[in-house]
Amino acid sequence: MSLIEQKFARLSTDNAPGQEVRQRAEGLDALLKGDTLPGTPVDFSHGDVNESAFAPTPGSLEAFVAGVESGGEQAYTEYRGRADLRARVAEHLGRFTGSPVSGSDELIITPGTQGALFLSIASTVAPGDKVAIVRPDYFANRKLVEFIGGEIVPIEMDYLNNADRAGLDLGQLESAFKAGVKTFLFSNPNNPAGVVYSKDEIGQIAALANQYRATVIVDQLYSRLRYAGVEYTHLRAAGIDPGNVITIMGPSKTESLSGYRLGVAFGAPKLLDRMEKLQAIVSLRAPGYCQAVLRTWFEEPESYMEERIQQHQAIRDDLLRVLRSVEGLAARTPQAGSYLFPRLPKLTVSPQDFVRILRRQAGVTVTPGTEFSPDTGDSFRLNFSQNHAAALHAIERTVELIARYRA
Amino acid sequence: MSLIEQKFARLSTDNAPGQEVRQRAEGLDALLKGDTLPGTPVDFSHGDVNESAFAPTPGSLEAFVAGVESGGEQAYTEYRGRADLRARVAEHLGRFTGSPVSGSDELIITPGTQGALFLSIASTVAPGDKVAIVRPDYFANRKLVEFIGGEIVPIEMDYLNNADRAGLDLGQLESAFKAGVKTFLFSNPNNPAGVVYSKDEIGQIAALANQYRATVIVDQLYSRLRYAGVEYTHLRAAGIDPGNVITIMGPSKTESLSGYRLGVAFGAPKLLDRMEKLQAIVSLRAPGYCQAVLRTWFEEPESYMEERIQQHQAIRDDLLRVLRSVEGLAARTPQAGSYLFPRLPKLTVSPQDFVRILRRQAGVTVTPGTEFSPDTGDSFRLNFSQNHAAALHAIERTVELIARYRA
Repeated sequence: MSLIEQKFARLSTDNAPGQEVRQRAEGLDALLKGDTLPGTPVDFSHGDVNESAFAPTPGSLEAFVAGVESGGEQAYTEYRGRADLRARVAEHLGRFTGSPVSGSDELIITPGTQGALFLSIASTVAPGDKVAIVRPDYFANRKLVEFIGGEIVPIEMDYLNNADRAGLDLGQLESAFKAGVKTFLFSNPNNPAGVVYSKDEIGQIAALANQYRATVIVDQLYSRLRYAGVEYTHLRAAGIDPGNVITIMGPSKTESLSGYRLGVAFGAPKLLDRMEKLQAIVSLRAPGYCQAVLRTWFEEPESYMEERIQQHQAIRDDLLRVLRSVEGLAARTPQAGSYLFPRLPKLTVSPQDFVRILRRQAGVTVTPGTEFSPDTGDSFRLNFSQNHAAALHAIERTVELIARYRA
Repeated sequence: MSLIEQKFARLSTDNAPGQEVRQRAEGLDALLKGDTLPGTPVDFSHGDVNESAFAPTPGSLEAFVAGVESGGEQAYTEYRGRADLRARVAEHLGRFTGSPVSGSDELIITPGTQGALFLSIASTVAPGDKVAIVRPDYFANRKLVEFIGGEIVPIEMDYLNNADRAGLDLGQLESAFKAGVKTFLFSNPNNPAGVVYSKDEIGQIAALANQYRATVIVDQLYSRLRYAGVEYTHLRAAGIDPGNVITIMGPSKTESLSGYRLGVAFGAPKLLDRMEKLQAIVSLRAPGYCQAVLRTWFEEPESYMEERIQQHQAIRDDLLRVLRSVEGLAARTPQAGSYLFPRLPKLTVSPQDFVRILRRQAGVTVTPGTEFSPDTGDSFRLNFSQNHAAALHAIERTVELIARYRA
């Protein structure tokens, strides 16, 4: 294999959310027991943005159309995004995170938070650099570091055996920094486990980063969707050196605006400058007209967000109740976000095959745990930002299939 | 400088189109002679998509809105783009280029042609690989190769002293292949010179690529905007091994849809697979709702394209007539696209300073020739997809300033 073939062999996307249509069904028939279960198919690999579930926030399309109508100034923005929008969003994010953000040099608008992750990793990590990555965490984190040629140093998170903290192994993190890790990348709330790092954990991450002069990239994509009674600490406002932290957010999740491909990264101006240079050759800019939709961000109608969060919490609780009726299944209650990450009991088929069977026999699409950590192959992730009734019925079918294939 | 600092030091965007607002004005005052010239400011660094110039093609916004209304299936497409849109666009492109394209495995929808360029280069070139790049050519080509860590082998194009061919030095190209170049990247029509490669040139490029088993990436972004009597040869239909060619196009130029950030790459399935894997970690997908706008592509109202081309040709001819009144200025007539790339006569200020003066004293923004080749520092590029009258007056002011600063 040539160097470039090796590089791409590690970037498999066959199990990635939305890519299931490209999977082959080979060898599945021989494993099947019993009949197909009827019911509305539910794709838990991502949120449902249709009217019957969680549609885009009000006013988003109108803001887009106004952007098109304003013409060239919206189509051709600076590579880092239109200046007045950056200023507006920066003010909201400063207030939200508890530490001011300058729209002129501390923020970039990106094509989705995926774009923000790529730009921040590629602007921070050189080939051969060591990067600390949490297990489990968002699957693209690992792939991004591998693509750049960085070396991954895994940090364990014992999310199942903790309740008031995420469960990060801070000793491992310090050892990693001692061993030369200069970049730490993590999501908070965690994707896939839905756990929130405690104030103490965030404080210690900040202190270690300062002590070892490491750069921390924190993906806070789900930080607006927090459930009742959950305390949330923004790393950037927790005493970390502002020259060494990048925060990533976007309106794709709680706001259901994923179809507009918008994200932002904000933090250290030196790194933001690099990110803009890189964006210039990767995609020029976040889609110009779509940027206009950011006018609605953090300006949603009053009580709108509150109601959305309550609706998600109700779905979460219903699904967990059904899942927990399964003996031997383990699931921590997510504190934020819209992911459940249950661990399956022992089955007669491999967890990977069970995921394929679930899709075939129950019309239920989930993302296998292997995507998030080599240690979580017996779990799967489901995004419960769905139509409530359809999701509940899909989980009832899932539970029925677990019983059918139980070891 | 650390490895990563070195990498980014080569990616300057200060002179890139649209970035001029971030430039400092230091030291300019001392160079100025005479007064400011009144007139509507014209930004020739990119096309004008306002109603007064070349607005987006009819039906594009309606197609976008229909995409939003169709919901999740348009928001969350496969990473390579929505299947039915790929099939539709592939059919058009097969007919347009004279060789069939499969929507299922030979085409990817990208965030603009910039996204397509990045993905194709990053999927083909490994660090240390040699890549042949034309001088002059689109400035991001060089930067992309440098960012990936490839080594650039320049190929000269004598565009000023040819009329019926682009003027590529085919001997240099063969020497480059002999010396180990495995990838050749070029734009046709050429950006910035607006010249079209002859049938013979394209045939020889195909033959050399086949002989040396090199991959060719051809950026045909402007291939729909061709002027009267110009013969155009699509490389992919000129006998090149289909497993070694990627063609890039998009609706940003002739169609003025740049604000939607859409492009496509089509060709070798093996390379397309890599590009999709990479897109998955760089931006996930081209903006979902925007993809729907591709329904209008190659389906524009009859005679619409023809009229657009005639309008561009009329502007081209008017601007060239005024520019050619300047003694010592050299400009080849563009055969396609909307760029002029005149070479200035000797001035009392450097060409770089003249570009800044032009912006300050005439309200005329152009892109300095240094962006396209180290050999074209005395030229500048202007995109004449503008309001006709405003562009003409801006060029009259430019000519007045050339006279004022002439050596």
